[in-house]
Amino acid sequence: MGLLDRVGSPADLRTLSASQVRALAAEIRGFLVDQVSRTGGHLGPNLGVVELTLGLHRVFESPRDTLVFDTGHQAYVHKLLTGRQDFSRLRRSGGLSGYPSRAESAHDVVENSHASTALSWADGIARANAIAGRTDRHVVAVVGDGALTGGMSWEALNNIADGADRRLVVVVNDNGRSYAPTIGGLAQHLDALRTTRGYETVLSWGRSALKRSGPPGRLAYEALHGLKKGIKDVVAPQAMFEDLGLKYVGPVDGHDTAAVEFALRRARAYGGPVIVHVITEKGRGYTPAEQDVADRFHAVGQIHPETGLPVAPSRFGWTGVFADEIVRIGTRRPDVVALTAAMLQPVGLAPFAERFPDRTFDVGIAEQHAVTTAAGMAYAGLHPVVAVYATFLNRAVDQVLMDVALHRAGVTFVLDRAGLTGDDGASHNGMWDLALLGVVPGLRLAAPRDEDTLRDALRTAVDVDDAPTVVRYPKGALTEPLPAVDEVDGVDVLARHDGAPGARSVLVCGVGAMARTGLALADLLAAHGLRVTVVDPRWVLPVPAALVKLVGEHDHAVTVEDGVREGGIGSAVAQRVRDAGLATPVQTFGVPRSFLAHATRDKLLTALRLTPGDIAADVLAALRSAG
Amino acid sequence: MGLLDRVGSPADLRTLSASQVRALAAEIRGFLVDQVSRTGGHLGPNLGVVELTLGLHRVFESPRDTLVFDTGHQAYVHKLLTGRQDFSRLRRSGGLSGYPSRAESAHDVVENSHASTALSWADGIARANAIAGRTDRHVVAVVGDGALTGGMSWEALNNIADGADRRLVVVVNDNGRSYAPTIGGLAQHLDALRTTRGYETVLSWGRSALKRSGPPGRLAYEALHGLKKGIKDVVAPQAMFEDLGLKYVGPVDGHDTAAVEFALRRARAYGGPVIVHVITEKGRGYTPAEQDVADRFHAVGQIHPETGLPVAPSRFGWTGVFADEIVRIGTRRPDVVALTAAMLQPVGLAPFAERFPDRTFDVGIAEQHAVTTAAGMAYAGLHPVVAVYATFLNRAVDQVLMDVALHRAGVTFVLDRAGLTGDDGASHNGMWDLALLGVVPGLRLAAPRDEDTLRDALRTAVDVDDAPTVVRYPKGALTEPLPAVDEVDGVDVLARHDGAPGARSVLVCGVGAMARTGLALADLLAAHGLRVTVVDPRWVLPVPAALVKLVGEHDHAVTVEDGVREGGIGSAVAQRVRDAGLATPVQTFGVPRSFLAHATRDKLLTALRLTPGDIAADVLAALRSAG
Repeated sequence: MGLLDRVGSPADLRTLSASQVRALAAEIRGFLVDQVSRTGGHLGPNLGVVELTLGLHRVFESPRDTLVFDTGHQAYVHKLLTGRQDFSRLRRSGGLSGYPSRAESAHDVVENSHASTALSWADGIARANAIAGRTDRHVVAVVGDGALTGGMSWEALNNIADGADRRLVVVVNDNGRSYAPTIGGLAQHLDALRTTRGYETVLSWGRSALKRSGPPGRLAYEALHGLKKGIKDVVAPQAMFEDLGLKYVGPVDGHDTAAVEFALRRARAYGGPVIVHVITEKGRGYTPAEQDVADRFHAVGQIHPETGLPVAPSRFGWTGVFADEIVRIGTRRPDVVALTAAMLQPVGLAPFAERFPDRTFDVGIAEQHAVTTAAGMAYAGLHPVVAVYATFLNRAVDQVLMDVALHRAGVTFVLDRAGLTGDDGASHNGMWDLALLGVVPGLRLAAPRDEDTLRDALRTAVDVDDAPTVVRYPKGALTEPLPAVDEVDGVDVLARHDGAPGARSVLVCGVGAMARTGLALADLLAAHGLRVTVVDPRWVLPVPAALVKLVGEHDHAVTVEDGVREGGIGSAVAQRVRDAGLATPVQTFGVPRSFLAHATRDKLLTALRLTPGDIAADVLAALRSAG
Repeated sequence: MGLLDRVGSPADLRTLSASQVRALAAEIRGFLVDQVSRTGGHLGPNLGVVELTLGLHRVFESPRDTLVFDTGHQAYVHKLLTGRQDFSRLRRSGGLSGYPSRAESAHDVVENSHASTALSWADGIARANAIAGRTDRHVVAVVGDGALTGGMSWEALNNIADGADRRLVVVVNDNGRSYAPTIGGLAQHLDALRTTRGYETVLSWGRSALKRSGPPGRLAYEALHGLKKGIKDVVAPQAMFEDLGLKYVGPVDGHDTAAVEFALRRARAYGGPVIVHVITEKGRGYTPAEQDVADRFHAVGQIHPETGLPVAPSRFGWTGVFADEIVRIGTRRPDVVALTAAMLQPVGLAPFAERFPDRTFDVGIAEQHAVTTAAGMAYAGLHPVVAVYATFLNRAVDQVLMDVALHRAGVTFVLDRAGLTGDDGASHNGMWDLALLGVVPGLRLAAPRDEDTLRDALRTAVDVDDAPTVVRYPKGALTEPLPAVDEVDGVDVLARHDGAPGARSVLVCGVGAMARTGLALADLLAAHGLRVTVVDPRWVLPVPAALVKLVGEHDHAVTVEDGVREGGIGSAVAQRVRDAGLATPVQTFGVPRSFLAHATRDKLLTALRLTPGDIAADVLAALRSAG
């Protein structure tokens, strides 16, 4: 019926007329709102790149030319144009990934959803093309303006600028909003920019485009003169590019298909690295998104397409508890400050920022800086709380080690979305933190199991002033309270099953959110007549001596965690038990060292045999073979 | 006798006349050459910052004002001026650290020797000062021009620029050499810079200084117009600073004490963040260093002070074997390319670069970019070899995971100076690699024990095209060849001791350079009548099935590694052994999770009880307690 049905591959786009391209853009927008409102997903970012993606596929010849999308959540339109139009099971097991996926298509290159990597990928591919003499192939990296605040982007630009012969196009997808007035010496530099011939040529397109397409002039004006709230990522790159000797084209109205194509063709024709600065609107064309000041429907669950309201309002989750408790702590403790890497809302720091604006720092997508600058703050008497998604702390392992821990800095890391997150695929799972942080000297890590233990962990963490502390919890809704029935030297006992007379005894330790699995596991083991104790030490790193002692008092021990098994908590417990000369075998359950395809957390746990039933079967088998 | 004797603290400097300061500078240079030639250490960098450090301590009041030195090897002069003039045991156990050390002095802040962190530290301290109302205190970060190629510097500058009220001075110590002509649009920008009043004011000092002090004009000219070889780190920052709205002062002749002080006083008087761009000469005033084209005596062992020639010429070490073998591989394999992060010489890539200049990439101090761009190169058909010091790969853990491993990219990492390095202190020890890399899916890691196994590991590594491979080896001289006496399913058997009839059997596995320790340990155990097998699997990650089987065939197993025990190879072996349902206890020896003060590798191994004798005692004790 529609134009979209006729697009089986990018080649089909190149036969369309200009008016057909505009019609197709409208059709794609309708498709995205309709589909993503059913499945959930990254709606706003993809509505913003419809015309840009059309232009990319009309001007460049993927996969001969290579398109690299930074933080691939902006690749839905790219998927639609490269033969993938069944969005019915988006982000579900067996359906399309929410990110580029090499398994899905030869048009997909980078699956990693961590920001600021695309320029490095593109530089490597372009260098390889140059070495292989594939001089007619182009490499295009599409990066958001926010991604330019990440240090990797600077490292890559420094190198890209060095390769005058490389056919590399950097498209900066600058979603033109949240701008504040220009400050400092920037205006002067922009004057120079504005008088170059290249700028004038493109601007003539841009002006007419702006007249047609929206708030006239204002968008371009603000983009040109703008400075993103608190972060100098909009204008500085322009200057930086020029200073580095990189060709710069822009700014271009990213919703004017003709202007976008003109700029991309121009960049394509140039023999070296070029920056194309494209101004887009996140959520473009979908009123609820355009009116959403907070994040323009960056990522949504299931929504009603007409209103944009959620189908199932989210429950009060782990993030909400942190958001509440950190404000209480901040009220009591004027030395507590909060840092986030461009994730103020998602990690729950918005209420703290509202209450304590002068004690809240959003450093951009810059985890390394966040961690090290926190060490500096701690040196100077503050207690910083660095709140990030667990998977993103992987970017600052060295800084946690060599800046925070080596200097015995009292810095608290709050890791949201730790463990398996599922839907967003391999690079979003926060399954690495326990193992990576397990090597850090002096570091103390809590994995709370419910609201009370989370609040308690946070209060305890900010009281430590001579070592890093970590509090990690999963994505999503809180589990119900799991009160302790007893306590042994600081280790919570969650349940005790007496077992049959003379039965062998098993200690079960579920880490954090896996405490519930531990309880269910214990029920199953008890049903087999075993004597079972279920414990939760809450603070799992370093391994508490009381836990080691408890293991020694049982015939068998079982640990369950939702992080990678290798080097995880179970592995650490087993090592301590051996060090103590205890013979009790420790059976460790966790996520195998692997990358997990997108699926729900529950599906993943089932597939990995991390359900109470599967674990019970393995424990019983181990007990049998031990005789 | 001299002026230096009269400097007990920085306050003593402030009473000196201008001519006394110059005399003191000369005296300090003599001291450094005399002392460091006896102990070894970072000579060139410290000769370059004599006047700069004098100026810093005359203008700012440490520790009230905070001085942060990036990659603290440039802090020798700072030590001399803050009450630490006994350099006789520099970098030796009990003597002065080669880096700032909080244990030594309240004037020292950052002990981490990893580059590009100082700006983040300084920003954090300045933010804390602002919050606490300590508005009269200044924070000064001293960073090298090379450190500005690291992404963290960009992340920090982006934030520093946001704090107009912070009293933060960034001193860029630009050691003016290795420049190539300006390219691209830089000249235009520099013109603007040169016409500002601030520049003219300082330049008048600079001009007269240059007339006095050396190759007239040339140095400043080259610095102003320069672009460091292959890396745009010299001029771009100037432009970048201005674009960001940061006050910029410079360039300043860093060997003109009056010019340096003038610029620093000017920066101090300004109410917000300021960059002071100081041009210095590495190795200044010491003829052998000034004439050394390669690295200006960056770091030396013991040398003859008159000639600069080494007292004990270094033996053919691990690095040399890599340097040789990678050229052989490159000759055979045109798809093999090499990457380094500003360490071409130290990691042994210079011969490869000479032979294959188009296939060698120095990306700057930018480990993250190096790793991810290598993934891009692998995607496009090359096999990249990324050669870095082991401790620096910690900076790119996320990129190894999410760019290389997730995408099954055939990238080889060569980790020099793995394990305990000792003299350079906590942040140089390469003791984290085994544990951190142990979580990476698909990754294969070799720890060769001698020259032959190193060559073999490299050849094997570059043949893997669907996963990351790692070859890691220690600092220093090669150990003598340790030939295998047998092989069991790919695991080398280095020795077998029959033991007394009916004796219990012990399997000993020494990882990499600890194979020698394993052999000596076996001798000691055999002397107690035990049956001992000494093995070396060479490829230790993933744990070979054959090694697990061998463990199961013995009554007791011992692993010895020079990395952190937690999550290390021993831990992985033990986990696999348990997974296989085998009862053999695995006793794991390695470096405890801790930061180690500077001392020789041998002293550290002794202190950590990682000698054959200590390990034997512990093994015998474990065997006794097991009955």
